[in-house]
Amino acid sequence: MDNERLEKQFDFFREIDKEKFIGRQTYLTDGERKENDAEHAWHMAIMTVLLAEYANEKIDVLKTVMMLLIHDLVEIDAGDTYAYDEEGKKTQREREEKAAKRIFGLLPEEQGEKLMALWEEFEAYETPEANFAHTMDNIQPVMLNDATDGKAWLEHGVHLSQILGRNKKTAEGSEELWQYAYKKMIAPNAVKGRIIED
Amino acid sequence: MDNERLEKQFDFFREIDKEKFIGRQTYLTDGERKENDAEHAWHMAIMTVLLAEYANEKIDVLKTVMMLLIHDLVEIDAGDTYAYDEEGKKTQREREEKAAKRIFGLLPEEQGEKLMALWEEFEAYETPEANFAHTMDNIQPVMLNDATDGKAWLEHGVHLSQILGRNKKTAEGSEELWQYAYKKMIAPNAVKGRIIED
Repeated sequence: MDNERLEKQFDFFREIDKEKFIGRQTYLTDGERKENDAEHAWHMAIMTVLLAEYANEKIDVLKTVMMLLIHDLVEIDAGDTYAYDEEGKKTQREREEKAAKRIFGLLPEEQGEKLMALWEEFEAYETPEANFAHTMDNIQPVMLNDATDGKAWLEHGVHLSQILGRNKKTAEGSEELWQYAYKKMIAPNAVKGRIIED
Repeated sequence: MDNERLEKQFDFFREIDKEKFIGRQTYLTDGERKENDAEHAWHMAIMTVLLAEYANEKIDVLKTVMMLLIHDLVEIDAGDTYAYDEEGKKTQREREEKAAKRIFGLLPEEQGEKLMALWEEFEAYETPEANFAHTMDNIQPVMLNDATDGKAWLEHGVHLSQILGRNKKTAEGSEELWQYAYKKMIAPNAVKGRIIED
């Protein structure tokens, strides 16, 4: 048995357990507890399988699912940078690259390189899979914010222009899902004053 | 836009958020907080992609990943039945079947049927994918129990015979992973008295 290879793989699995402790700003549907990165990734992975039919371009579903499952692992070292934290975003890329090298580097070399490439593909917004993954990454919290009567939006005093800025590439993965999310989950909350219109 | 279809899909996504509140008996690597079903599924999905090479028979990785992502959704209605709760296990199947019908029934019909079939395949232990999914479902908590110095085993006074009984089919998905888990994560904890030898 190639124990060295398995040791590396299980070292990685034990390390990524820490993703379950990385909090996000989104409230779960109970409106009380906030989501963590692992829960967020699980939710999007299921959504991807069931919503792939709406992708603008045909996507490799397994590749997109894996991209989403691992894309936040860098936050184990780099922390979660809130979508509207302009200061934190300045150093985000550098912090995350260093984290990716350390965490993916725990794996056997060729597996680590594959995950690194997948994470970089996500970050580059260039392939149908990366675009669709970002559509999921943007729409899933919108869904939860809408389901909790805009609680996180209200707490942060979020403006409609910020949401539209954050979502400027959401339609590149799926025009249909972006239209749906905007009409059903964003616009009604702006009308109700839960998102500040500007 | 087919809004009715999207409404059903998003009703399902909002409903399954509840999986994040279903607690398990396994401690996370901090040894303080216990894992929930969504975190457990996320962890196993990544493990499946990186450990598929050890499957006894070649598996469809995406199918296995999706099986694991959705296999505990029935617990939203039926609750988590602890592996060594013999009373709870008597009514488990009936409670879970009813839950599967309601929860998968939220989706557009053909998608609900697919997930129902996938859940039933998991429960039946007959295909390479189902066998490998059970290998993951058994080894992931063993890994966490080992990483937390056997805390959950000690709290429940678990006997080695119970663990071996629970794992009697683990090798059917991957002989190599079962051998590794037994030698590295189970046997050493029995020697240290964290698992009761019998």
